[in-house]
Amino acid sequence: MEQNTAFAHVTELGKNAKAVAVKLASASPKQKNDALAAIADALIARTEEIMTANRVDLDHAVENNMSRAMQDRLLLNADRIQGIAAGVRKLIALDEVVGKVDEGYVRPNGLQIRKTRVPLGVIGIIFESRPNVTVDAATLCLKAGNCVILRGGKEAFSSNVCLTTIMRDAIASVGLPKDAVQLVQDPSRESSQALMKLSDYLDVLIPRGGAGLIRAVAENASVPVIRTGTGNCHVFVDASADLEMAVNIVDNGKTQRPSVCNAVETVLIHRDIAADFLPMMKVKLDEHKVQLHGCADTREILGNCVLKAVESDYAEEYLDYQLAVRIVDSLDEALDHIAKYGTNHSECIVTRSLENARRFQQEVDAAAVYVNASTRFTDGGEFGFGAEIGISTQKLHARGPMGLMELTTVKYLIDGDGQIR
Amino acid sequence: MEQNTAFAHVTELGKNAKAVAVKLASASPKQKNDALAAIADALIARTEEIMTANRVDLDHAVENNMSRAMQDRLLLNADRIQGIAAGVRKLIALDEVVGKVDEGYVRPNGLQIRKTRVPLGVIGIIFESRPNVTVDAATLCLKAGNCVILRGGKEAFSSNVCLTTIMRDAIASVGLPKDAVQLVQDPSRESSQALMKLSDYLDVLIPRGGAGLIRAVAENASVPVIRTGTGNCHVFVDASADLEMAVNIVDNGKTQRPSVCNAVETVLIHRDIAADFLPMMKVKLDEHKVQLHGCADTREILGNCVLKAVESDYAEEYLDYQLAVRIVDSLDEALDHIAKYGTNHSECIVTRSLENARRFQQEVDAAAVYVNASTRFTDGGEFGFGAEIGISTQKLHARGPMGLMELTTVKYLIDGDGQIR
Repeated sequence: MEQNTAFAHVTELGKNAKAVAVKLASASPKQKNDALAAIADALIARTEEIMTANRVDLDHAVENNMSRAMQDRLLLNADRIQGIAAGVRKLIALDEVVGKVDEGYVRPNGLQIRKTRVPLGVIGIIFESRPNVTVDAATLCLKAGNCVILRGGKEAFSSNVCLTTIMRDAIASVGLPKDAVQLVQDPSRESSQALMKLSDYLDVLIPRGGAGLIRAVAENASVPVIRTGTGNCHVFVDASADLEMAVNIVDNGKTQRPSVCNAVETVLIHRDIAADFLPMMKVKLDEHKVQLHGCADTREILGNCVLKAVESDYAEEYLDYQLAVRIVDSLDEALDHIAKYGTNHSECIVTRSLENARRFQQEVDAAAVYVNASTRFTDGGEFGFGAEIGISTQKLHARGPMGLMELTTVKYLIDGDGQIR
Repeated sequence: MEQNTAFAHVTELGKNAKAVAVKLASASPKQKNDALAAIADALIARTEEIMTANRVDLDHAVENNMSRAMQDRLLLNADRIQGIAAGVRKLIALDEVVGKVDEGYVRPNGLQIRKTRVPLGVIGIIFESRPNVTVDAATLCLKAGNCVILRGGKEAFSSNVCLTTIMRDAIASVGLPKDAVQLVQDPSRESSQALMKLSDYLDVLIPRGGAGLIRAVAENASVPVIRTGTGNCHVFVDASADLEMAVNIVDNGKTQRPSVCNAVETVLIHRDIAADFLPMMKVKLDEHKVQLHGCADTREILGNCVLKAVESDYAEEYLDYQLAVRIVDSLDEALDHIAKYGTNHSECIVTRSLENARRFQQEVDAAAVYVNASTRFTDGGEFGFGAEIGISTQKLHARGPMGLMELTTVKYLIDGDGQIR
């Protein structure tokens, strides 16, 4: 699609959303929950329709020689659709966030001030292949009283059209405006760029995907952005660490699910325990055939089965069964390494030293800083939020896992009886 | 300065700030308060030096035929310097925000999670003429544990150099790093643009100034931005309003300080009471020689002393003794007008109707929504924050007056004893 046509299209969607945003913001908790229940029911009832639409995407994937792993991410079968519907039902039980009063107080002049939670308004979400995100993201936005404009990847376009249609029908069936959920009907680069500039209609834009997408959005958007997801996470094994615990935390961080942003990418090891720890770690990681990339000292201890680590091994996310390993002389050296290569996502120290634990938590600049626990816990569900829309690695608005609360903003409501200054 | 030179300069400042950010974030409340006291003392002790530096700016202002009002905004005399120092001392008494635990809880697996307030890190502030902002902004950032890079206007450059030097000396005198406060040594458009792209070093950029500046920053920055200040504020006088109260609220909003963002720019009047209300309002506003710009119906009631309102009268901030007036048929028409022309800052309804008060607060999309009180109260001091860095008109991170808390973000600190997933 041409840039002008794409901009005209997303502007149209923006106008539609803006026109119904007040209705969504004023919807009662019951109305929103009824809509969620209707969506869950419709996903189950229309499973065949979804699988037929998904088949179109899968056929394209085969034609385009997409990898098996990618094809698997695209797949929607009856089981997965039930899983998606179950996710939507879980939202119904979560506490209502709109209307919550964060603070309320009376000023000396009698003004009554209430700082009240309200929806952000119109949220744009740009995401890549997995079609389950379409439903997850839309229903979370809906529960928090927002309108959403979804711009999914072209690989899942047929599935996304079907899922969006089903959600819109279900929303309308309970009397809420179907334009609460809209899909950009053009999964091109141009539509993505057009969304980034839609500041007259979008209150916030959330990119969900790889580092390239996030960077492009952050650099080009005039709409306020929440950056999510890039995680170059470290475990630092301190001199006083419980070595068995450290092995388990490294192994869990690396191998439990290597493709996600809270997976461990580099382990830093205090020199004093490196000769003891490295062989223990290697035995465990060998079970999952993890390829190590180590500094010269690491290779001296473990031998040439460890590849030589280069700058990019420390700087980039593997998102795979690969792990960078570096021996450091001190906590300070570990902190410097993390400051240089970290992406402010999740960092962990394994230690028995109170002083080092405190310094690590104080000085590491990241959304989540762990003492003696796996970085894999940085997750809305694990933090107890019930659901998440992504993990923010920026400092404005939200940091770390973002749940329903992070999809709201505040409004000050001030009641007087004629006060003037 | 050339673009490359400007970028090299601000990058240097960014590196300096980043190098000391951990020290600032770890500074104790006492250290920060000692620094504030030292700054206040030094401002008084070095008053002559400040006035001499300010004289250079004032001389330039005269040479450049700057308006008397602008010259007055630039002026620093002994009284004003005492006022600035007193403002700094007031910060000392405010509660420490860094280290505050917003929430702390234990997960079923025993993980202890603390959501803890930490400084944003490195804050860039781009501002225009008034040199008092230099000290206000820098000391607020310091109190919240942040490093600040100030880019003031060229009109106040000599004053800003002097004030920044004094603050840096004072900060160093109590053992904190002087690079906590830095001034861009080049008040050019290029340095401003360079700051907008300094995403490797700046955690947030706050523009303080006119609508043009804010828009330029929002459109061009790759650094996260907090938009402040543009306020096209309305008072809606409902059919059931206490008319005398409404006159006072309109008069206060328009004339108490017309140049500020929470001043009233348009009054919307319900048709049922327009013939009674307009003459009352005019008598009061005539005391301040307010020029009215009215719709046809308004002019029918008040005559040709009211200028004919055109589109721009509704769309732009006067920031002056000018007021747009429009008669509407209903609350809905008032809401539509505000949705179309408002800037999401402060809006007011004067009414005796509970239903209309609730609908107005529910449906108006603004940072502060008033029932029966002046919009002039949208201010950190008036809201009880003790100080403010500006008024956010965006929805991400902060909305409305921003105090110390809004200069922080959160960090999740997670303590375990070996938990893995």
